[in-house]
Amino acid sequence: MRDFDGLEVGFDVPARPGMPEAEVQTPCLVLDLDALERNLRKMGAYAAAHGMRLRVHGKMHKSVDVYRLQEEIGGACGICCQKVSEAEVFARAGVKDILVSNQVRGAAKVDRLARMPRLGARVICCVDDLANVAELSAAAVRHGTQIECLVEIDCGAGRCGVTATAEVVTLAKAIAAAPGLRFAGLQAYQGAMQHLDRYADRKAKLDVAVAMVREAVEALGAEGLDCDIVGGGGTGSYYFESASGVYNELQCGSYAFMDADYGRILDEEGRRIDRGEWENALFLLTSVMSHVKPDRAVVDAGLKAQSVDSGLPVVFGRDDVRYVKCSDEHGVVEDPAGALKVGDRLRLVPGHCDPTCNLHDWYVGLRNGVVEAVWPVSARGKAW
Amino acid sequence: MRDFDGLEVGFDVPARPGMPEAEVQTPCLVLDLDALERNLRKMGAYAAAHGMRLRVHGKMHKSVDVYRLQEEIGGACGICCQKVSEAEVFARAGVKDILVSNQVRGAAKVDRLARMPRLGARVICCVDDLANVAELSAAAVRHGTQIECLVEIDCGAGRCGVTATAEVVTLAKAIAAAPGLRFAGLQAYQGAMQHLDRYADRKAKLDVAVAMVREAVEALGAEGLDCDIVGGGGTGSYYFESASGVYNELQCGSYAFMDADYGRILDEEGRRIDRGEWENALFLLTSVMSHVKPDRAVVDAGLKAQSVDSGLPVVFGRDDVRYVKCSDEHGVVEDPAGALKVGDRLRLVPGHCDPTCNLHDWYVGLRNGVVEAVWPVSARGKAW
Repeated sequence: MRDFDGLEVGFDVPARPGMPEAEVQTPCLVLDLDALERNLRKMGAYAAAHGMRLRVHGKMHKSVDVYRLQEEIGGACGICCQKVSEAEVFARAGVKDILVSNQVRGAAKVDRLARMPRLGARVICCVDDLANVAELSAAAVRHGTQIECLVEIDCGAGRCGVTATAEVVTLAKAIAAAPGLRFAGLQAYQGAMQHLDRYADRKAKLDVAVAMVREAVEALGAEGLDCDIVGGGGTGSYYFESASGVYNELQCGSYAFMDADYGRILDEEGRRIDRGEWENALFLLTSVMSHVKPDRAVVDAGLKAQSVDSGLPVVFGRDDVRYVKCSDEHGVVEDPAGALKVGDRLRLVPGHCDPTCNLHDWYVGLRNGVVEAVWPVSARGKAW
Repeated sequence: MRDFDGLEVGFDVPARPGMPEAEVQTPCLVLDLDALERNLRKMGAYAAAHGMRLRVHGKMHKSVDVYRLQEEIGGACGICCQKVSEAEVFARAGVKDILVSNQVRGAAKVDRLARMPRLGARVICCVDDLANVAELSAAAVRHGTQIECLVEIDCGAGRCGVTATAEVVTLAKAIAAAPGLRFAGLQAYQGAMQHLDRYADRKAKLDVAVAMVREAVEALGAEGLDCDIVGGGGTGSYYFESASGVYNELQCGSYAFMDADYGRILDEEGRRIDRGEWENALFLLTSVMSHVKPDRAVVDAGLKAQSVDSGLPVVFGRDDVRYVKCSDEHGVVEDPAGALKVGDRLRLVPGHCDPTCNLHDWYVGLRNGVVEAVWPVSARGKAW
């Protein structure tokens, strides 16, 4: 270790390009590059066929390299981020069209947002409060830049956003009148319905959102305020927004990687969406580290390698073993037939991809059993 | 941002020393340094008074600076880590006595462990499998180093470790006979009882562990194998191990910071342990970013700033508001009296400190409302 001369496999990085998969250090995130590319092309083609722009969500993968691939083969017109510091990572990497799909509050964050266009990016954020319009305007004027603003509608998620059309119009007018700002449209992401299992239940929630958005667009139009962007849509809803006739941008993230919680939701035919609509491209690679009890193995991926907020991970491609318990650094895997031995590797499908990706520094991209790419999770931990 | 000349507050770091607390960027982890120091001194004094060595657990804080303070004022004789890459961080920082309180399996990890003594540290690991003895021995011989080994007993946690005394003896003999290895004692941490609410329930579980350990120590003694280290004990049990007459090292971690899940357990008098035994020293500082609905605020700390595996965070020092929902980047706080406004800050006590700390790059140490220290979470993400 004293003769360190770069990134060390097992300390700084889990793998190097060219390495066989069997040598990748576990636990780590691996990407099936073939599956990833198929997912990206499929969503890109869907958006194009339905006349929708696709502003992919960077909060899911937080990776400049994955975003570049989304631009190159997946039809992405730009990116969504959730935090200013996250957006800065992409802006610094040269991404030209960035929406912070969230409220930006506080003097320091507003100031940073207002400086970001100087990196060469179009910068857009969401607004749900008149006081914020004044803050954003003052900062943009101070830096001689322009911030585009979407009025955020709470169309069912119960988080940020206004609910009354009159409030939407008031905010839009204030934005349009504010120096340094430009009114760019509406943010209407319904985050609370994405994971409802049944297609009909999801559709019912989205119908409400569409009605709210349509009313807002019409009211704004009556005031001479056009919406360049009417954005929303996730992996559990994008077909509804695309069919709405009122949304024009999709903001999907998880479709690229998939996860166990999303995988369980059902499409219109009642089929799990990870059995046809999208492929699992993201896995948490883990190794068996102890197998003293004949019917249970202990693996090396616990709470510090994955988020279990949406349930435990699922062992990919195996029905004979089951991940049943997760502690800080260990996972317990039921192995009733004693099929596993120390050193065996399992691919886990994480319960929830977004917060799991945010735990890791690297994605190891695999093709045909060989490491093809080692990509940093560029905006990992950028929570400000 | 083009005139970057070091770590930038709001992009790379949440704060700088000397800054008032009100300017710290949120969400971020803050430490109440007075409370932290009181916790450290208290556990150090307890261990000394009870003739126990205190090998504090580095997996909880993953911070070289916190460990140094534990050595300086908290009576720490060394550190426990859970991963080889985590241990390397502390070894590289000059820590001299390191126990990887876990199984180390796989050629690359075993090789790294065997190299670690060349950094000047005593290196100890746990073993529950004869095949591992051979691997470790070969690697130590190859590098001309010594690895000390503890036989791990599964004394109730149901993870790694052997359960039969005969297996303990077999492993200990194999270690003692293996070139490059030294038999150093027993690892017997009962992780499954630490969070049981009732003191009597915890004691009942620990009584079982103590009986197993005593039997093993005696059987080893009959074979002429002495245990330098009989290690275990956590924040929910250390008084039991200290009173056992058979354990001689404590491995507590959470006592230093405390968290909401540990805080709820009860001491012998039925009092919550965060109401006297230990102080909350770790907080997730968060800001209100939206408050459109009169009775609920949205704050900027969600799943990427904390782990909710052991429950939602608790708002510190306030009974009037309650954190009720956590999504990727948002928290919903019930605010029935409308007491909060945008920009207000709350200190959250995380549900579970270990995986929460592992999400962050920095601890901001506060004293009297001013930033006194900004410490890296040195081994964050070191999961290999």
